[in-house]
Amino acid sequence: MKIAIDAFGGDNAPLEIVKGAITAVNLIDDLQVVLVGKKQPIEDILKEYGYVGDKIEILEADEVITNEESPTTAIRTKKNSTIVVGCNRLKDDEDVVAFISAGSTGAILSGGVFIVGRMAGVMRPALAPTLPNVKGGQTLLIDCGANVDCKPEYLVQFAQMGSLYMQNVCGIKNPKVGLLNIGAEDKKGNSLTHEAFPLLSEAKNINFVGNVEARDLLSGEVDVIVADGFAGNIALKASEGAIKNMLKLLKSEISNAGLFAKLGAGMMKGTFKKLKKNLDYNLYGGTAFLGVNKIVLKTHGTATAETILSCALQVKQIYESGIIDKLKESFAENL
Amino acid sequence: MKIAIDAFGGDNAPLEIVKGAITAVNLIDDLQVVLVGKKQPIEDILKEYGYVGDKIEILEADEVITNEESPTTAIRTKKNSTIVVGCNRLKDDEDVVAFISAGSTGAILSGGVFIVGRMAGVMRPALAPTLPNVKGGQTLLIDCGANVDCKPEYLVQFAQMGSLYMQNVCGIKNPKVGLLNIGAEDKKGNSLTHEAFPLLSEAKNINFVGNVEARDLLSGEVDVIVADGFAGNIALKASEGAIKNMLKLLKSEISNAGLFAKLGAGMMKGTFKKLKKNLDYNLYGGTAFLGVNKIVLKTHGTATAETILSCALQVKQIYESGIIDKLKESFAENL
Repeated sequence: MKIAIDAFGGDNAPLEIVKGAITAVNLIDDLQVVLVGKKQPIEDILKEYGYVGDKIEILEADEVITNEESPTTAIRTKKNSTIVVGCNRLKDDEDVVAFISAGSTGAILSGGVFIVGRMAGVMRPALAPTLPNVKGGQTLLIDCGANVDCKPEYLVQFAQMGSLYMQNVCGIKNPKVGLLNIGAEDKKGNSLTHEAFPLLSEAKNINFVGNVEARDLLSGEVDVIVADGFAGNIALKASEGAIKNMLKLLKSEISNAGLFAKLGAGMMKGTFKKLKKNLDYNLYGGTAFLGVNKIVLKTHGTATAETILSCALQVKQIYESGIIDKLKESFAENL
Repeated sequence: MKIAIDAFGGDNAPLEIVKGAITAVNLIDDLQVVLVGKKQPIEDILKEYGYVGDKIEILEADEVITNEESPTTAIRTKKNSTIVVGCNRLKDDEDVVAFISAGSTGAILSGGVFIVGRMAGVMRPALAPTLPNVKGGQTLLIDCGANVDCKPEYLVQFAQMGSLYMQNVCGIKNPKVGLLNIGAEDKKGNSLTHEAFPLLSEAKNINFVGNVEARDLLSGEVDVIVADGFAGNIALKASEGAIKNMLKLLKSEISNAGLFAKLGAGMMKGTFKKLKKNLDYNLYGGTAFLGVNKIVLKTHGTATAETILSCALQVKQIYESGIIDKLKESFAENL
């Protein structure tokens, strides 16, 4: 299994990305990595960390697309950027099964659609993170930012893609699908959810259970939450922010508390660590961009070596599940 | 100051509501309360809790609008419901300054618009909760559910109403206004935020600082967050859910932890209590429905006596700030 990785995407590139690639090829037997980026810095890091094997290849690309650039323009004009070069390699080399990047989300999505290509029958590919829920399982949120203005029919396809993913990659039988809405009652919502609700109720190949509220994002009540990319992104970031701010508040409460409580906090260190680990998105790898012809994985801009390892393990799971072919078959039927 | 309170709204009505009213009139010197609902049960509770003063009046209303009913139909047909009777009293009695209810949000909004009446010049009244932020202050989120499909011009008025509120009720000078969006960069967003952004940049009487992400809902970076009611509701409920689920996870981690950590948790009890109090929306009273002619306050369906007391204190603050007249003046200028 060969994976292309953007060595210059994210805040900690290239060091953490290259370190992550080394760890991944050392840990995963059949893995080969193509590191995309400037040759010299990558070689220096490989040397510094004593990597001498033949499981890492370097693919020269001397430009980087920043978050400030217009993604579609950048994809058209920066032909030698890591994302364009990486996506082209993914498209052209049948041995390469996936491209992973912690770079500009917009550019990764544009590269996915315009270079790797949209699957036949899919109207809009969508970003689909799996979130750890409090029941100990995972909930897939689709879309969470690729399509900010959606038609109701897109949401039906998101539900179908998400269900296939949860069935095949996460082993959930007959996954429950909920529509992200502002109330659980059938009639709730805005014009988009009003129109999407009956379409979802009638759609084939999904187990639609009705509306879910944003407070159920992490509760594990459903396996797939369908949303337009704007609302999905708001829900995801509000949850992340609330957790982050709550931990901040807890920390400041502890530092303002008396000696007794501080001692208590010290005794609970292991519990806090475990909680933080449960909520650490870095350990959950990346977000799959579903509906393009091969595996494209977007990971956090703050990705560390650990994140890259998680992404490689996630790609392995996605690849071995055969989900890409299953999605292709399923949507080809609609044509 | 006289306030009408829906004695039969919410899960804990009428007991907790009536208890809350007793506490409020005992604590707030110049307060008088009109309890709206079935006379006998209210009288029984007043008697049970030994209330004998003349600061509580009962206004008979023998119907209750449920969450399952269509709000606009219910407001038209259930003329003797607590919300219709309460809103009519608010409209007709110049001594009554506010109506508080923990009942059906939709019915309270409909009652506000169709009975109490929209302010001249205001296109759409909006729900505007003030959320405790980690800087120790408050952030106003407007709208969070009254208007699920918005035009860009509505968002400008939400920003203006929210700014006036934060200035006059919360004493924030030149409050910073942010537009809820999926990225901080100016060009981010869906078609609504794209159109609203330049309008907000040019609008008078507001200090617009650009886009804010949902993760900043509780960070205190801005004083007013403007959103369409769908996105605002999603952000609010995702935050609430994340915090609730995280506390649940923490609790289960503690119960699975060793004796040492359990002992530590015991020693931290005070700190946890303080944290929970910080995050407890019950202590923050209700959500103002801005843009109607008088003060209408919607509070949680789970409202307790403590919540009702908080709501009464909040109404006092809103009333004494003179915000209703200031809003009326400001929007009359637009006519």
